[in-house]
Amino acid sequence: MTNDLFLRALRGEVVERPPVWIMRQAGRYLPDFMKLKAKYDFFTRCRTPELATEITVMPIDQIGTDAAILFSDILVLPQAMGLPFEMKPGKGPFLASPVRSKSDAERVYVPDVEEELDYVMNAIRMTKSELNGRVPLIGFAGSPWTIFCYSIEGQGSKTFNLAKEFAFTNPSAAHSLLQKITDTTIAYLRAQIKSGVDVVQVFDSWGGVLSPVDFEIFSGQYLRQIVEAVKDEAPVIVFAKGCWHALSTLSASGASALGLDWTIRPEAARELAGGDITLQGNFDPARLYSSAGEIKGMVWDMIDAFGKDRYIVNLGHGILPDIPVDNVLAFVDAVKTYPQKP
Amino acid sequence: MTNDLFLRALRGEVVERPPVWIMRQAGRYLPDFMKLKAKYDFFTRCRTPELATEITVMPIDQIGTDAAILFSDILVLPQAMGLPFEMKPGKGPFLASPVRSKSDAERVYVPDVEEELDYVMNAIRMTKSELNGRVPLIGFAGSPWTIFCYSIEGQGSKTFNLAKEFAFTNPSAAHSLLQKITDTTIAYLRAQIKSGVDVVQVFDSWGGVLSPVDFEIFSGQYLRQIVEAVKDEAPVIVFAKGCWHALSTLSASGASALGLDWTIRPEAARELAGGDITLQGNFDPARLYSSAGEIKGMVWDMIDAFGKDRYIVNLGHGILPDIPVDNVLAFVDAVKTYPQKP
Repeated sequence: MTNDLFLRALRGEVVERPPVWIMRQAGRYLPDFMKLKAKYDFFTRCRTPELATEITVMPIDQIGTDAAILFSDILVLPQAMGLPFEMKPGKGPFLASPVRSKSDAERVYVPDVEEELDYVMNAIRMTKSELNGRVPLIGFAGSPWTIFCYSIEGQGSKTFNLAKEFAFTNPSAAHSLLQKITDTTIAYLRAQIKSGVDVVQVFDSWGGVLSPVDFEIFSGQYLRQIVEAVKDEAPVIVFAKGCWHALSTLSASGASALGLDWTIRPEAARELAGGDITLQGNFDPARLYSSAGEIKGMVWDMIDAFGKDRYIVNLGHGILPDIPVDNVLAFVDAVKTYPQKP
Repeated sequence: MTNDLFLRALRGEVVERPPVWIMRQAGRYLPDFMKLKAKYDFFTRCRTPELATEITVMPIDQIGTDAAILFSDILVLPQAMGLPFEMKPGKGPFLASPVRSKSDAERVYVPDVEEELDYVMNAIRMTKSELNGRVPLIGFAGSPWTIFCYSIEGQGSKTFNLAKEFAFTNPSAAHSLLQKITDTTIAYLRAQIKSGVDVVQVFDSWGGVLSPVDFEIFSGQYLRQIVEAVKDEAPVIVFAKGCWHALSTLSASGASALGLDWTIRPEAARELAGGDITLQGNFDPARLYSSAGEIKGMVWDMIDAFGKDRYIVNLGHGILPDIPVDNVLAFVDAVKTYPQKP
């Protein structure tokens, strides 16, 4: 690996500066991505290895991040489980027949992921070849709870109250579905690693709608199953948005790193997670609207607060579509010019 | 006051059981409210003292909560400042010409609230007369940051990124607008107290979209101005949703109580807020979908964890419209039958 800074930070080694990558770096704010978006619909871009590869490598060439993340979507997994999600332009994910009953849940099946999601594996192999050892490649999946949320709700939501109502009033059907998603996710991440990804990240985008007690019941235990099953094959990053209350238990899961959203101070995150785990985050995506000079100052303050070791610079959530490319370059440049303290 | 449990809990006195009220208790889940909703549009209900009074008193008669909260909306305040918000049925608040520039912000004015919002004062006086000392009456306002969010965005949002972009790129215009909202809010809450409310609550519904550093800059300092200006006239409750990181600074503001959403453990909230302040919350509104028996167990666990003193039972956010009335009664009944420990 020409640039293995990201892998070294995940192993907790002393580094010259922290590595940097950006959630959703492969996409929407890049003009060349928008040209591809105008020609091909969302899941065509995911399913065509040449397109997924081109989009995945784009920010490595144009932005200079220290890791690539496969262009794909967390919903390709439930698609392979019998839930045919579509992506409605301007609206987001949509499932015409969401899971609303025990019998709906029973119809969801654990697929052969290497067969059903062979296009992901092909995209990984093609991307690895195109990257040619420049930077590591990150694979990913949604958390079981997050996939469950979309499967019940059938679309995005602020609060996922339908999903919560289902979980709270049909707990045995909910757990049976969550276990099927977990089993599929473990097989999926193992297949990604076998196909070449160097690291995997699990996104629990909606764990934060649950209370701490319900998070443990409906999300935490499944996240831990995944980490346990995968961690010996590749480093695992767990990003549970809004779940600061779970940092200490997730820290003990065997994950190599924990992702953080922007609503926690670095010092508080270090204290809650304990000293031994790498942390990743947590610049407010909307703070990239600020000037290049302000971004540089805030990034340096952030690295000072987290410390340069056991730390990966990232945003606290995906990059916003209308951020100017120059501001993204200022963000990455700030990390690369972070002054070494004597 | 026939039932002054709520006021005693706010003063930190030892009580026989904690008081209970429910955010948005005056409304949507009650069949009698839905009949009024079918006849009168949203702001007509707010602006007609007879209707506001009837709706405010309804849960006292039908649910038996220990406090009434005036039926109104946080957006009546910006309406009085030259921002004519409408309420679109099924969609929520809407402002046709939101604040998008410095000159838009300059046109927003500090009104004479007693004149512009005389219908609120009339509703308070009529409600107090109708309550006839049975339980205390809570008045309220939105936080300056939350009103700012709606004023810039012009509607609801998951992330309020337009508001954040405005604040981050036009900080001086943003602070000037936030100060005008703060001045109006102080006058508004004082007028409410003069008209008869016993307690006021400030809702910072969207402080949680900010990082801890930006919360202090764009929300915390204005919340503190309000508490400082009002606290000697009535007890103030500050509910900053998603702002667990600010509990210690808000605890030192002079507020009598802090509201909590459901994503924090009671023990963590007590530790962050310190021992001397009353806490209010924080049952997950979606957990009211559970059975009456489960609700009772969870409420008792919650009271055990917070302790019965310096505590007000509530939800962690507004009640959901489709919660069965029987489940709401089970929630209130659980508090009233909480077993005294010897």
